[in-house]
Amino acid sequence: MKINILGCYAATPRSFTNPTSQVLEIKNHLFLIDCAEGTQVQLRRNKIKFSRIEHIFISHLHGDHFYGLIGLVSTFRLLNRDKDLHIYGPKGIKEIITLQLKLANSWTNFQLYFHELTSKKSEVIFEDDKISVATIPLNHRIYTNGFLFKEKQGDRKLLINEAVEHNIDVSLYRSLKKGKDVISEDGKLIKNEMVTKEPPPPKSYAYCSDTVFSESIVPIIKNVTALYHESTFLEEQAELAAPTKHSTAKQAALIAKLAEVKLLILGHYSTRYPNIQLFREEAQTIFSNIELADDGREIIVE
Amino acid sequence: MKINILGCYAATPRSFTNPTSQVLEIKNHLFLIDCAEGTQVQLRRNKIKFSRIEHIFISHLHGDHFYGLIGLVSTFRLLNRDKDLHIYGPKGIKEIITLQLKLANSWTNFQLYFHELTSKKSEVIFEDDKISVATIPLNHRIYTNGFLFKEKQGDRKLLINEAVEHNIDVSLYRSLKKGKDVISEDGKLIKNEMVTKEPPPPKSYAYCSDTVFSESIVPIIKNVTALYHESTFLEEQAELAAPTKHSTAKQAALIAKLAEVKLLILGHYSTRYPNIQLFREEAQTIFSNIELADDGREIIVE
Repeated sequence: MKINILGCYAATPRSFTNPTSQVLEIKNHLFLIDCAEGTQVQLRRNKIKFSRIEHIFISHLHGDHFYGLIGLVSTFRLLNRDKDLHIYGPKGIKEIITLQLKLANSWTNFQLYFHELTSKKSEVIFEDDKISVATIPLNHRIYTNGFLFKEKQGDRKLLINEAVEHNIDVSLYRSLKKGKDVISEDGKLIKNEMVTKEPPPPKSYAYCSDTVFSESIVPIIKNVTALYHESTFLEEQAELAAPTKHSTAKQAALIAKLAEVKLLILGHYSTRYPNIQLFREEAQTIFSNIELADDGREIIVE
Repeated sequence: MKINILGCYAATPRSFTNPTSQVLEIKNHLFLIDCAEGTQVQLRRNKIKFSRIEHIFISHLHGDHFYGLIGLVSTFRLLNRDKDLHIYGPKGIKEIITLQLKLANSWTNFQLYFHELTSKKSEVIFEDDKISVATIPLNHRIYTNGFLFKEKQGDRKLLINEAVEHNIDVSLYRSLKKGKDVISEDGKLIKNEMVTKEPPPPKSYAYCSDTVFSESIVPIIKNVTALYHESTFLEEQAELAAPTKHSTAKQAALIAKLAEVKLLILGHYSTRYPNIQLFREEAQTIFSNIELADDGREIIVE
């Protein structure tokens, strides 16, 4: 599981910082999460193949999270994309994109599917045999969702030497991977755990931006492998966090602690702070395993 | 008169090139002309004061000319702008911008005036005592205007030593600047040209992007000081220019020659060409005084 941070700052693009966008690589998917102005340039600079992006998740309709979407959709068209594209985001996103395509007398030469979100409860919005994606209802100034990406439990790992030794026909290997006991060629009952082992535990990633500090998300993100939680402010400016419905680094760490996550990734920093290390220092008073999102950074989650 | 090229490439932003946007400084105005994705970053990098921009001219509703507008408007708000902002562009531009502000539950704390254009004839869309701005109807795939910025004839320059020598009362200086003859303190008739001289000739700038080769614009842009004319292609790819309603460098030069302009600025290059000098070489077979637009370049028109 790998996260490419394309942009991790709040509010507006600046000369050398980008607002929010990231790419999650999980089970051979490349999911684009939020898409601020300049995202397509950041995709190029980070050498991420445009054609591998088939699902885009937009948390909310503030500009620093989606103003780059129409440009990316247009560029997909110019690149002669033919693969379907799925866009998940708050109601209204379809109207914004299609209005702009219409006024440009433009079109997409690929299928463009909008999945407009309105629920205030967590719901599964994408699923295949390897992963699922669910919303995380957040509390921000407008309707906002985080996203929870979960790998499914994989097949058990076959111990090939043991299977051969126990004289098991290869046609039964699939049953073994599914956890079943089998009968060997010699007519013996072979208990599954004799010839297989546990698969690696499934990983999960919770993306939570933007939100005020809210314990209501803790049950949804409990025990995730990695949590990205916004930390727009430091505690010094805590009086700005509540009215703007943002969080401080300390509050992000508290959520990580309550949810017992393995790794906390901080981001969505206000550009008022010249040194993002201050966010780590503040959060580490509460929670120890922290990574700082930074534009262009690749975070590999083991 | 000064032109800051923020972006001068066609189609999409790339790792290190920007689509179309430029700032014209004329008679103490800063006019933003077109506003592709990334324009606000280019404004910052080129150290152009956001607050000095009061008028934005959008040629047409293709993304490489206006996808940066909503982000810039939002940033103006975040910067607590209070000055009015005027946006001139094709009908539909108001709906795009206001829809996005509405869905973000956002607003502007300054007056935002939209001047939606629909006429297919050249019309004056802004005027003050020093300059006028008129549309230049262009022929592109969708409704498109270029813009003609013209300084007005200024007052005559007073030759102060001569005025004193002829014993003219200071209360008459204003009349002299307006070209009138006056009577000196000694009762003599003073012919205007004895104590004033011609002001510098007014400058003009014609911005023509995007358009197919079309002689119909020549009468409108006749004798301008500087003409920016798109040159998306070289003659080698002339077969692409007509169907996409773009021009070649040679065609741009031909327009410059027919219109007898003083300076031709080329831009809106397709990113297929690795070397923009080729555009100059091609155009110079027809017209000699050429500047190449290039991202970050400042062109001073004397």
